[in-house]
Amino acid sequence: MEINGNQLIGNNQSREGSDTFQSISPHDNSPASEALYAEATPDEINRAVQLAAGAFGQYRKTPKEDKAKFLACIADEILALDEQLVKQCVLETGLPEGRIIGERGRTVNQLRLFAEYVSNGNWIEAVIDTAIPDRQPIPRPDLRSMLVPLGPVAVFGASNFPLAFSVAGGDTVSALAAGCPVVFKAHPAHPVTCELVGRAIITAAHKTGMPEGVFSLVHGKTNEVGAALVQHPAIKAVGFTGSHRGGMALFQLANAREEPIPVYAEMGSTNPVFILPGALKEHAQKISGELVGSVTLGVGQFCTNPGMVFIEENATSQDFMALLHDHVAQSNGGTMLTKEINQAYSRGVETLESIEGVAIKTRGAMKETANYGQPVLFVTGFEHFEKENRIAEEVFGPSTVLVVGKTRGEILLAAENLKGHLTATLHGTEQDLNDYKDLIEILETKAGRLIINGYPTGVEVCHAMVHGGPYPATTDSRTTSVGTAAIKRFARPVCYQGFPQQGLPEPLRDENPWGIYRLVNGALTRDQI
Amino acid sequence: MEINGNQLIGNNQSREGSDTFQSISPHDNSPASEALYAEATPDEINRAVQLAAGAFGQYRKTPKEDKAKFLACIADEILALDEQLVKQCVLETGLPEGRIIGERGRTVNQLRLFAEYVSNGNWIEAVIDTAIPDRQPIPRPDLRSMLVPLGPVAVFGASNFPLAFSVAGGDTVSALAAGCPVVFKAHPAHPVTCELVGRAIITAAHKTGMPEGVFSLVHGKTNEVGAALVQHPAIKAVGFTGSHRGGMALFQLANAREEPIPVYAEMGSTNPVFILPGALKEHAQKISGELVGSVTLGVGQFCTNPGMVFIEENATSQDFMALLHDHVAQSNGGTMLTKEINQAYSRGVETLESIEGVAIKTRGAMKETANYGQPVLFVTGFEHFEKENRIAEEVFGPSTVLVVGKTRGEILLAAENLKGHLTATLHGTEQDLNDYKDLIEILETKAGRLIINGYPTGVEVCHAMVHGGPYPATTDSRTTSVGTAAIKRFARPVCYQGFPQQGLPEPLRDENPWGIYRLVNGALTRDQI
Repeated sequence: MEINGNQLIGNNQSREGSDTFQSISPHDNSPASEALYAEATPDEINRAVQLAAGAFGQYRKTPKEDKAKFLACIADEILALDEQLVKQCVLETGLPEGRIIGERGRTVNQLRLFAEYVSNGNWIEAVIDTAIPDRQPIPRPDLRSMLVPLGPVAVFGASNFPLAFSVAGGDTVSALAAGCPVVFKAHPAHPVTCELVGRAIITAAHKTGMPEGVFSLVHGKTNEVGAALVQHPAIKAVGFTGSHRGGMALFQLANAREEPIPVYAEMGSTNPVFILPGALKEHAQKISGELVGSVTLGVGQFCTNPGMVFIEENATSQDFMALLHDHVAQSNGGTMLTKEINQAYSRGVETLESIEGVAIKTRGAMKETANYGQPVLFVTGFEHFEKENRIAEEVFGPSTVLVVGKTRGEILLAAENLKGHLTATLHGTEQDLNDYKDLIEILETKAGRLIINGYPTGVEVCHAMVHGGPYPATTDSRTTSVGTAAIKRFARPVCYQGFPQQGLPEPLRDENPWGIYRLVNGALTRDQI
Repeated sequence: MEINGNQLIGNNQSREGSDTFQSISPHDNSPASEALYAEATPDEINRAVQLAAGAFGQYRKTPKEDKAKFLACIADEILALDEQLVKQCVLETGLPEGRIIGERGRTVNQLRLFAEYVSNGNWIEAVIDTAIPDRQPIPRPDLRSMLVPLGPVAVFGASNFPLAFSVAGGDTVSALAAGCPVVFKAHPAHPVTCELVGRAIITAAHKTGMPEGVFSLVHGKTNEVGAALVQHPAIKAVGFTGSHRGGMALFQLANAREEPIPVYAEMGSTNPVFILPGALKEHAQKISGELVGSVTLGVGQFCTNPGMVFIEENATSQDFMALLHDHVAQSNGGTMLTKEINQAYSRGVETLESIEGVAIKTRGAMKETANYGQPVLFVTGFEHFEKENRIAEEVFGPSTVLVVGKTRGEILLAAENLKGHLTATLHGTEQDLNDYKDLIEILETKAGRLIINGYPTGVEVCHAMVHGGPYPATTDSRTTSVGTAAIKRFARPVCYQGFPQQGLPEPLRDENPWGIYRLVNGALTRDQI
């Protein structure tokens, strides 16, 4: 496929903007492609959204099996991009080939999982309360409800998952599965990958007979393109993965609209890890090695990177610190995603270092290649941690802060004072977990996912996953951006009162043509009425 | 029970504010009680919220059967208030005794329905994906998720349902059922009713062993008390029923917090009714009578009051208009809830009358009693309706606007241009419903509840109810404020990864001790693992 840098507006390509930019390879800060990408113009953005709004009427009524075929076909088209996609993605993200191939697999599996999930149909939450004509003092009418899609969705992908959280990533696939057309704002850190995958989606839409405008993709390096998308009256929800500043800017724009709309911004977090005394004593070697592996995985460029580790000072804590030091000293960093991310990482490390009571204990390997992120281990005490909010702020990259508390009480207090995180992790023996039930109960109020004796990196795409959490991890703790439950972000319930059978949407008809579970007069059943 | 006008802060009563107000009877604008209500002070508000935050730790872990007992006990305590509650409520709201007794029944049934719903346990949406240790390239960990409560909730009741949408109304009961303590901002239009019901809840909490602070009630006539509540960092969500202005003020405050929180504001709507040609011809007499009944029910003081009626001009439309005229001319108004609501109604009628092309066709009976709301029928044409947004704005009271379109196309265009509403209603014969499928599809995107051959007033409390809808009907179309699904507004999912059995919350343990439906590896089942 020849890369051309055009905006993908329904079935048409467009190129009206004059401000252009190129894809830059973080390996050497040189262009990763000859293609020139232009800032989408207001008119191009408007056309993309209007096409999406036009497509919505047909797409939301598209049979679920056809939607499933569309999603599965996207997976096929992505695989058909083959080496071009992998090579281009490696070139413009700095991520190794193995990782990109793995992430492609995850992206394809995610599309197929949603295809299965949407064709199964249970997700629409059908509820039926049948009429009671002779009820006193007044009859009960027939009432039936189910979820319907919200409308066109604007999606902003993440730089750190150029496939799984980008053009055909979790937000796009869950919105499309729900029945919502998507206008995607391409990430300027990997515009070529975006173009390739965007064209794969449009090809899949064409092949499976989806209406034009069900998917469009616009480019932009400035904030204007994203702002115009979020402010467009026909956009009904926003999916975003990225920085706190970026997410909150979109959130505030969305709430200031004449019609406020939901913004699902996943803004990362510091993902506290608590290593309890028994585990510290018995498994120091294992945990220290695996933990450093999690901190430095993917050059630390994960939303679930463990950025804070809490331990209690005791007879064995020094040994653990020494082990942690050894592992970090032997660890490697790598090329970060962009020059800007690498610079922000350096600034973050400098900021932490400048805080009273926070010291760099160890640095990992340093290489003089472009945009190299060097692992860093900080150490501080509870008393400093409690005084300085900045210690708990995310530094995107391969660093972590070991916080040493003097007592169990200090550890509990540190947990109590945490803000919201995507994850919270505990390492403990059976005895530890029994002794620290109160800590687990506190962490339940602070995170979307709790992990015992594991690591927060590695987010499984499945039904039970919650990739979310209280603010500031996200703008909406009631949802997840990974896993099948993500579909519910793009739907709302509608109740049908007194409808004749043929007027009802299929899944609510008496004979249960979808064969789904329905809550009928308070009882879950797949029976006909 | 002796009314004393105190703030109810956990188990204590408090009276620190110096600015006082009284309950005023709309029957004659004189005090409905001797009691003086004071504006809650910042310190009182803070104590109430701190108690709620303190109670949350215990209350969220309270066994579901005990929560159910608490809710059922509230119902009993409300009934035990007996005549005092009914008389006081009639006096301060102007609503007739029969209506208050009926509304009390609805409130009590709502509490009992939620008691049953919460003790059943299925609402927590348990999802389990079991470990796959030998999966390639990496093992799948054990992942289990369920809903957990958000935290303390601030609730603002409605003036028009002094029992069912007030202190022990839908927002309070769904928050308590979810496991969230409630701080209730009493409505100044019925503070005595609020005090009585608030004390009933606190008695029930005491009798059933709930932690102090699970419920508190503060009074206030100014905006300060509500603003302080919504801005308190320990408040995690807001339930509101009332005016657009009030709801949006809280919504903006909540989004401007350091930690933004969800606001579920139900702000009313105009509830369009479409009478299709066949029904207009065949059932004009029946529909016109029933429609006027719905418009004037409760002096039109319902969020679901039908404020716009659309018909096509044809051979029979004149007959229908004449019938509508007759019914309105014979209709009665009544005492409105407050002087301010009555004045706002008069202003709303004047505004509509001042719009070019909108004419008063008929007025109902007028009485010279205090705060009397007189029924009014307006008529206008599609061409005026399309030019003037104000015609579609809610006028809270017994008026409606008949909009006459010249063609089917005009009716469809009017529907397309509607904003969000709580309900949309169609009257049609079988043939009509077949001919106007496109209209139904449009209305599906505009309302939370669609009604065929019925009327929007009368909101059933059941599982399938959706009392919500796109903005500006509410600030969150993804939810309902009536029916059991309202509970989900106050919960968020948490995922437990790699937890040992005994560390898991009960409903996620292998043996399924709650006996609930769980999504296990993608299949819904009540089986053990």
